[in-house]
Amino acid sequence: MNPKLPVGIDAMAFYVPPIYLDLQTLAPARNLDYDKLSKGLGVLKMALPDTCEDAASLAANAVWNLITRYEIDPSTIGRLYVGTESGLDGSKPIATYVLEMLNAHWQKENQPAKQFTSRCDALDMTFACIGGVDALQNTLDWVHRGQGRVGIVVCTDYAKYDKFSGGEYTQGAGAVAMLIKQDPRLLAISDVWGVSTKSEHDFFKPGYSETPVFDGQFSNACYQTRLADAYADFTKQAIAAGLYAPGQILSEAWHSLIFHLPYAFHGKRMFPEIFVAERQQDPGNETLAALLQLEPGAVSQLSAADLVKTVAKSAAYADFVAKKIAAGQLASAQIGNMYTASIFMGLMSCLETHYAQGQDLTHQKIGFCAYGSGSKSKVFEAVVQPEYRQIVAKFEIFAALAQRQPIDLAEYEQLHDKALDRPLASHAQSFVLANIASEPDTLKGARFYNRA
Amino acid sequence: MNPKLPVGIDAMAFYVPPIYLDLQTLAPARNLDYDKLSKGLGVLKMALPDTCEDAASLAANAVWNLITRYEIDPSTIGRLYVGTESGLDGSKPIATYVLEMLNAHWQKENQPAKQFTSRCDALDMTFACIGGVDALQNTLDWVHRGQGRVGIVVCTDYAKYDKFSGGEYTQGAGAVAMLIKQDPRLLAISDVWGVSTKSEHDFFKPGYSETPVFDGQFSNACYQTRLADAYADFTKQAIAAGLYAPGQILSEAWHSLIFHLPYAFHGKRMFPEIFVAERQQDPGNETLAALLQLEPGAVSQLSAADLVKTVAKSAAYADFVAKKIAAGQLASAQIGNMYTASIFMGLMSCLETHYAQGQDLTHQKIGFCAYGSGSKSKVFEAVVQPEYRQIVAKFEIFAALAQRQPIDLAEYEQLHDKALDRPLASHAQSFVLANIASEPDTLKGARFYNRA
Repeated sequence: MNPKLPVGIDAMAFYVPPIYLDLQTLAPARNLDYDKLSKGLGVLKMALPDTCEDAASLAANAVWNLITRYEIDPSTIGRLYVGTESGLDGSKPIATYVLEMLNAHWQKENQPAKQFTSRCDALDMTFACIGGVDALQNTLDWVHRGQGRVGIVVCTDYAKYDKFSGGEYTQGAGAVAMLIKQDPRLLAISDVWGVSTKSEHDFFKPGYSETPVFDGQFSNACYQTRLADAYADFTKQAIAAGLYAPGQILSEAWHSLIFHLPYAFHGKRMFPEIFVAERQQDPGNETLAALLQLEPGAVSQLSAADLVKTVAKSAAYADFVAKKIAAGQLASAQIGNMYTASIFMGLMSCLETHYAQGQDLTHQKIGFCAYGSGSKSKVFEAVVQPEYRQIVAKFEIFAALAQRQPIDLAEYEQLHDKALDRPLASHAQSFVLANIASEPDTLKGARFYNRA
Repeated sequence: MNPKLPVGIDAMAFYVPPIYLDLQTLAPARNLDYDKLSKGLGVLKMALPDTCEDAASLAANAVWNLITRYEIDPSTIGRLYVGTESGLDGSKPIATYVLEMLNAHWQKENQPAKQFTSRCDALDMTFACIGGVDALQNTLDWVHRGQGRVGIVVCTDYAKYDKFSGGEYTQGAGAVAMLIKQDPRLLAISDVWGVSTKSEHDFFKPGYSETPVFDGQFSNACYQTRLADAYADFTKQAIAAGLYAPGQILSEAWHSLIFHLPYAFHGKRMFPEIFVAERQQDPGNETLAALLQLEPGAVSQLSAADLVKTVAKSAAYADFVAKKIAAGQLASAQIGNMYTASIFMGLMSCLETHYAQGQDLTHQKIGFCAYGSGSKSKVFEAVVQPEYRQIVAKFEIFAALAQRQPIDLAEYEQLHDKALDRPLASHAQSFVLANIASEPDTLKGARFYNRA
C-alpha cells in the first residue's frame, strides 16, 4: 500500500429488471393523482423483479455487468460484500450465491482461469438502506490496509410494499456493483465519516417479512434528524481533519449532493433544514437574506419552521437543487426505490448526467447523505478522479432503462401476488432463479440459478 | 494511530441463558447412547434461551458484562458490530436493539453521561457461524486506520434444531462480546488471513427458518475441505509476511488451536488431515514415523486415508489434543453450539483454563480455525499480550456456568414448541424481551426489552 494514494470507487455498474410499472398505470387504479406522484415525488416508473428474479440474481447481474464492462479479472477480487435488506436466507449469504452464479457460468464457458478464487471473501451486511454504505466503508478500510487489494461491493434489493399501502407507489428494485481499490479511476473517498445512530422503529421487517412495517411520516422525521446529526458530525470532523475551514458551507463546496432516495425528490425535500443551518452561522442572517432577497431583519423575524419553509420554496433553493441535486434524481424517477442501491444509483445518475452535458467534474467534491431506517445516517465525501470519463462513459443508464418493457395492471397484481407461473419478459443473457428445491430434505429451499 | 502498536482484542465477556438441558435428560428420551454423546462428541449440557430471551437480549447481556466488568466508558465506543445467524428482522439490525437496551437502562439509572452516543456505528453481518469473525476482521481494519478508535464486536446466536433431528443434541445458545482496540491487553491479531470460500448448501436457513436445513456429514466434509484450504492459504501468506519459515509446522508453533465448535470435540476430529499434511513435508516421512513410532517405510505404505486414521488414533495426536486443543473444548461441553460465538467461547475457555493452571501464556501464539456453512473458512493467529492475566481473571466462565439450573424434558419440549407462557428461570439483573407489539399497525412485530 502506497499511503499517498487514495482508496475509493474505481468502477460501477448496475442492473434493473427488464420490466416496469408506469405510475400512469397504477395511479388511476388506486385513485391517486398522477401529477402529485410525478411532480410532487418525482416517481414515474417502478422497476419490479420478474418471477425469475430475486436479490441474489439482481446482484449477480450487476456484478456481471461490472466485470464484463470494465474487463476485470475476477481472480484478482479479494472480497465480495453485499449490502441488502432483501435477504433470502438467515445463514447463507447472498454473496455466496453471486460467486456461485458467475463461477458456474465461466466454468460452463470453459473459462476456468477467469473465475473468483476460493480466496474471495464473501459476506452480507444488514442495516436497512444503509447496509451498502457500511459494506463500502469496511471495504475501503480493508483495501487501505493491504497491498494490491481489490474488492467488490454490491447493493441489491427489492423494495416491495403491500398493495394499496402508502408505500405501493414507491416500490422498485435493482442492484449496483462497485469495484473498490487503491488509486481509483472514478472517486477517491476520504476516511472522514459523519455518523448518527439511534434505535427507532420507523421501518422494519419483523420475522423477515417480505414487505415492511413502517410509518412513513415518522420515518421522514427520523431521516431528517439522523441526517442533520450525521451532517454536523461530518462537518466537525472534516474541519478537524483540515478538509474545510470553520464556518465553510459544505453544500457550497460540494459540486453535487447524493442522497438515499426512497423516491426521486426525497433528498431535496429533506435537505432545506440543513441548508438553512449551514447558512445561518453568521449572526446577522446576511447569507440567508441575500439568498432570499429579503432584509436581514425580515429573516430574523421568521420562526425556525417558517424560515425552512420559505427557503424550501425560494428561487435560490430551486437553483441549488437544479445545480447540485437534480442530476442524481433522474435514475430514481425511472426505477423507484432500490433501498441499499438507491444512493449509489443516484451517484451514477449524477455522474452520467453531468458527463452527458459535457461538464468537467475532475477534482470536484461530491457529498453523500446516506440513511437507513432503524435508524442510522452516514455523511461522507468523495473527489472525482481525473480518469473518471472512461468509467462514466460505460454506465449507459438511460439507454439501458429505455430498453425495458412496461407491464399492465393485471400483470403487476399477479406478479405481486406470486400468481404467475412464467416470467413476463425475456431474460436472455441474464442470471435468473431456475428452481427452489423441494427435495431431498437436505436441500429443501435451496435456490438454483442459471444464465438464460 | 501509532503504526508500531498492534490492534486486537482488549477484553472479552460472555452471556449464556440461566437454563440448560442435560444430555443425560435428553439421551434416554431419544434412544441415544449418552456415552456416545458425552465421550464421542464431548457434549454434556446445552444452554437454551428462556421464553424471554432472543439473539438481541443475549447480545445485550454479553455487552453489558463486557462494559461493567472492564469498566468501559460506552461513550468512547465508535462501533458495535454483530455477527449472527439468528437475526430477528430483515432490515433493523440486532446491533440497534443492543444500543437501545443498554442506553434505556442507563437513562433510567440517571447515567446519561454513561451511554453509547449517536456516533456509535451499528451493523449486523451474516455468514453462518463465521459472521462474527468477519465482524472482528473488519473492526480490526477500522481500528487500525484511525486514531483512538474503539469498537465492540458481539457474536450472538441460538442454535435451534428440530426435535428428533440429527442436530437436536447439538443445540446451544449464547453470546460473546469483545472490545477491539489498538495496543490491546489480551490478544494482538496480525493482518494475515487465510481464506477459503465456496458456495455450498451444507447448512442453510431458507426464508429465515428458525431451524436449519442441513446435511451433517456433508457439512463436516465442507468444514474439512474449506479449513484445509484456508490453512494452506494462511501458511503461504504467513511465510510471505516473514512470520514463519518455509516448512515450519504452524500447529507446533502455536501454543493452542481454537476451532469453530458445533460440538466440543469437532475441532480435534476435523484436524488430523491438516496435522498429517503439515508433518508430511519431508519426503522420507521421518516426522510422522517418529510421532507414530513406526519405520518411515511403514508410514509410506499407508494409504492417505489410513494414515490420517492412524494419526487420529495415535498417542502423539492425543498428546497434541491434550496440550493444544482440549482447553478450548471445555466451555462448549457445558453450553453446546453457539454458532458465531462458538469460536470465541472456545478462546475464552482456552485462556481461562490455562490461566487457572498457572501457565504463562505471555507472547504465546494462538491459531484460529474458523468455519461458516455455506461455506467459508478463515485461519488467522493472535499473540497473547503481557497484560492478559488481568483480563482473563475476570472471565469467570466455569463459575458462572455452575450457577445455571437444569430443566426437565417436559420443560424442554414446551420451551422448544413455544408452549410456555412464562420464563423457566429468574432473569434478575438481565436484559429480557418484554413484549412483541401487536398494535398499532405501524409497530406490529416491534420488540421491546427491559432489564429485569
